[in-house]
Amino acid sequence: MSLPSKENFSEWYHEVIQTAEIMDVRYPVKGLYVWFPFGFKIRQFVYSKLREIMDREHDEVYFPALIPETELGKEGEHIKGFEDEVYWITHGGLTPLDVKLALRPTSETAMYPMFKLWVRNHADLPLKVYQIVNTFRYETKHTRPLIRLREITSFKEAHTVHKNFEEAEEHVKKAIGFYKEFYDFLAIPYMVIRRPEWDKFPGAAYTIAFDTVMPDGRTLQIGTVHHLADNFAKTFEIKYEAPNGEHYYAHQTCYGISERCIAALISIHGDDQGLVLPFEVAPIQIVVIPILYKGKEEAVMDACKKLVDKLASFRVILDDGEERPGAKYYKWELKGVPIRFEIGPRDAEKGVAVASFRDEKKKFEVSIDEINDDLIWQWAQIMRERLFTSAANRILEKIKIVKSPDELKEWVGKGVAIFHLCNNEDCGLSLEEHGGSLLGWFEEVPEWINLDVEGECIVCGSKGKVAALARTY
Amino acid sequence: MSLPSKENFSEWYHEVIQTAEIMDVRYPVKGLYVWFPFGFKIRQFVYSKLREIMDREHDEVYFPALIPETELGKEGEHIKGFEDEVYWITHGGLTPLDVKLALRPTSETAMYPMFKLWVRNHADLPLKVYQIVNTFRYETKHTRPLIRLREITSFKEAHTVHKNFEEAEEHVKKAIGFYKEFYDFLAIPYMVIRRPEWDKFPGAAYTIAFDTVMPDGRTLQIGTVHHLADNFAKTFEIKYEAPNGEHYYAHQTCYGISERCIAALISIHGDDQGLVLPFEVAPIQIVVIPILYKGKEEAVMDACKKLVDKLASFRVILDDGEERPGAKYYKWELKGVPIRFEIGPRDAEKGVAVASFRDEKKKFEVSIDEINDDLIWQWAQIMRERLFTSAANRILEKIKIVKSPDELKEWVGKGVAIFHLCNNEDCGLSLEEHGGSLLGWFEEVPEWINLDVEGECIVCGSKGKVAALARTY
Repeated sequence: MSLPSKENFSEWYHEVIQTAEIMDVRYPVKGLYVWFPFGFKIRQFVYSKLREIMDREHDEVYFPALIPETELGKEGEHIKGFEDEVYWITHGGLTPLDVKLALRPTSETAMYPMFKLWVRNHADLPLKVYQIVNTFRYETKHTRPLIRLREITSFKEAHTVHKNFEEAEEHVKKAIGFYKEFYDFLAIPYMVIRRPEWDKFPGAAYTIAFDTVMPDGRTLQIGTVHHLADNFAKTFEIKYEAPNGEHYYAHQTCYGISERCIAALISIHGDDQGLVLPFEVAPIQIVVIPILYKGKEEAVMDACKKLVDKLASFRVILDDGEERPGAKYYKWELKGVPIRFEIGPRDAEKGVAVASFRDEKKKFEVSIDEINDDLIWQWAQIMRERLFTSAANRILEKIKIVKSPDELKEWVGKGVAIFHLCNNEDCGLSLEEHGGSLLGWFEEVPEWINLDVEGECIVCGSKGKVAALARTY
Repeated sequence: MSLPSKENFSEWYHEVIQTAEIMDVRYPVKGLYVWFPFGFKIRQFVYSKLREIMDREHDEVYFPALIPETELGKEGEHIKGFEDEVYWITHGGLTPLDVKLALRPTSETAMYPMFKLWVRNHADLPLKVYQIVNTFRYETKHTRPLIRLREITSFKEAHTVHKNFEEAEEHVKKAIGFYKEFYDFLAIPYMVIRRPEWDKFPGAAYTIAFDTVMPDGRTLQIGTVHHLADNFAKTFEIKYEAPNGEHYYAHQTCYGISERCIAALISIHGDDQGLVLPFEVAPIQIVVIPILYKGKEEAVMDACKKLVDKLASFRVILDDGEERPGAKYYKWELKGVPIRFEIGPRDAEKGVAVASFRDEKKKFEVSIDEINDDLIWQWAQIMRERLFTSAANRILEKIKIVKSPDELKEWVGKGVAIFHLCNNEDCGLSLEEHGGSLLGWFEEVPEWINLDVEGECIVCGSKGKVAALARTY
C-alpha cells in the first residue's frame, strides 16, 4: 500500500496522517481524532520545545475548561466572535444547569476574572503565564485532522499583563521572537503578517499572525499574537496601583499556537514516501539495518550492535526483523526516520556503515569508528538547514508578486499573491472579491520577497505597503 | 496570617491550598479551581514520575474528550454508573446537536470502539496504553480542591487488552506494583483493598483500590485497578484471531490515578506551618538564607553564593531579599522547601552552613566543603523514609482492630475499623448501617495490622478475611 502522490495534497495528507500513525481518523464523531502512540511522541517532542521557550519567562498554569456564560459574554466583541462556534453544556446528569457552561474555545474569559484578583499593584506586573490545554470549536466547515477540528487537543496559549500600551507592544515583539525561534527549530518557513481590521482576534487592538504556505498554495495560520490594549482590562476590571497611588487599567497581550504546528511539520517537509522529520522531533532518530547473507550473519550483527551501542544517547533502533531490507526502508521512510545506516557483510569487514538521510536519496560510506555524538548532531543541524531551504524553495514557487488586481485574480487559485496595498479598507475588501482572503500586511518584508517596503496600492495607486492575499485553510 | 492548626483538618486543607499557592479556589464556578504556577510545578514533578513508570510498558496516547451518547450508553452497567454525573453538551453554537456529546467522565467508551479496530490478531496483544487528561463529573456533593471536583485536570488512565482472563489478572498484579512504586516514591502509606461487589467500577469484574487515611480519619481513594474481564470486549466487539484460527473476545483491565495523589501528598505530610514535600517533587528543593549584619555582608554573601554554585544541579534559590530571616523561614516553610541553609558571619568565617530539614525542628552545622550532590541525595532519601514513617505512625493512630459490630460502631466516627468479615453481602451491608463505607478486603494484609489473614466474621462468625470500614472522602 503506497501513499498518493503529494501533488494531490489533500489526499496525501489524509492518508499520511493515518498510515504513518499520527492520528486515527476513524473516531465516531466528525472532527475528532485519536492520537496514535507514534503521533503522540512527535507531539511531545514538538511541545517540549515550545515549553522550553515559554518557560524562560512565563509560568505554566492551568485554568478550568468550563467557562460560565456570564463570563464568556462580558466582552461584547469577543462573544460575537465565538458564540456561533462554542459547545454549550446545558445539563449535569439529568439536571439542567442554572448557568450554561461553555467548553473553552480560548481562555481569556476564564483567566481574566482571576487576573483581576492577581493584579493589585505595579509590582505584580508584568504577569506572564501560559497553558497547554484542549480547546473546543464547533466547526461546521470541512474538518481535517490537526487543521480544522472540534477538539484542539494541545493549544498553547500565553497571556500577559502590562502597565501600559507601550510595554504590551514591546512584549508583542518578544512573543513574535519566541514563535520565530520555534518555527526555525522546526525548519518551517513563515510570513509574519498583521491582519486587517476585519480579521483580527475578537476584542484585540490588533493581531499579528504567522502564516506558512501549504503544498497546494493555500496558507495555514500557525500562530497568532494579539495586542489586547485595555479592552479586556476594562471589561474584567484589571487595574493596578501605580507608585503615585493612582489606579490604572492594565494592558494585555495573548498569543497562541495550536497543533497546526504539527500539521505544518508534516505537510511542509513530507514527501511521496511519507514523513520527513527534523532530527530533534523524530520519535525514532536513527535506524540501523543489517543486510544479512547466509553464513555471514554474525559479523554483520556484531557490527550493527557495536554501532547501536555507540549511538545510545539517541533514539535509535536496530531493525533485525525478518522482512527484506526494501520493506524495512519503506517502513522507516514512511515514519520519517532522519538517519539510516545499513551494514552488509563487506561493510562489516571494512568497518564501515552505509548512511543515508531521509530527505536525500544518496547513500555514502562512513567509518564506524568515526561515528560519534558530535558527528550525528552536525548532520542533524545540516539536515535542518537543508529541510528549511528546500521547503522555502517549494514555497517560493507558490508565491507571486502581482502588479494589478487582474494579475492577482489570475494567480489567486494557484498560490499567494504579494502586492502593495494601502490601508483603505475598501481596497483590501475589493481584492477579496477575486477569491482568497487578505492575509494583511507584512510586519517585516522577508528578503526573499523582491519588493520595496512601500509602493503604490495596486487598487487605488495611493501609498501602500507589502501585503499578501491567498486562499487559506 | 497563619494557617489554622492541622487538627482542624478541613479548614487547614482549604487554607493551605490557597495560601501555599497550590490552587486558587476563587474561580467563579463551584467545583472548578485554577492551578497556580507553584501548584502546577508540583503537579508536573508528580506526574513526571507517574509518566516514567507508565512509559516502561505503556504507550501514551490521546483520545477525544467528547463521547457520543450512543457509545457511552452501550455498556449497560457502565452507563448506569455514570449517567447522573455526566456533563452533556447539547448545542454547538446555537444549533442543537443530533447526538448529544458527553464530556468524558473516564474513557472506556471513547477508547474501546477504536480498540475494536486496533486489535485483530493475537500478535496485537497485549495492548497497553495510557493518557493523562482532563475528565469531568457533575458533582452535586460538597466539592473540595483536588478531592471532589468537577474538572479533574489530570486523570492518568491506563487501559490494556489481553488474550484471556488469566493474563489480564497477571496484569492487574503488575498495575498494583506500578502504583505501589508511585506512592512509595511520594512516601504516602496506602492500603490495597478489594472493593465489595456493590462498590466496584461499573462494568468491571472486580476493583482493587488504593486507600490512604487522611488526618481526620476518613479514607481517600487514591487509585483503582479494575479487571474488566470480557464485559466491555463483548459490548464493543473486541476480538482477536488466535493461532488456531478461532476468534476470541479479549479481556481487559483499566487503572487510574487522579490528582487526588496531590491532595494526599499535601494532607499526609503537611503540618501547621504548611506544606512538607518530598525532595524530588518540591518546586524549590533548597533555600539558602544569608544572615546579614552590617559590615559583614560581603563574607556572608560570598559563602552563600559559593554554596548555591555547588548546588547548581538542584532547584535552589538564594533568598537575599530585604525581609527579616524569620519572615523568610515562614515563607519557605509554607512552601514546603525540604532543605534550608543559613549562613551568618561566624558561620562564613568557619566555612560552615547551618542546615535544617523542613520536617524536623533541629538545626545542625555542616562544612560547606563537604556539601555535594551525593550528600544532598542521601539526605533526600533519609527524609523520604522519615516522612513515610511519621505518616504511617499518624495513620496507625487512626486505625483500630475491632472485634464486634458494637466496637466498630463506637470507632467509626474516629477512623478506620479493621476486622474479619465473611463474603456474605448481608454481613458487609449490615456494618455500613453504623456509618462509613465498607472499603472491602485487603489484597495483602500489611505487617502493621496485627491480625491473622483469616478469622471469624465479626457479624456471623463464619470464615472471614481482613476487611476495613471507614468514612470516606
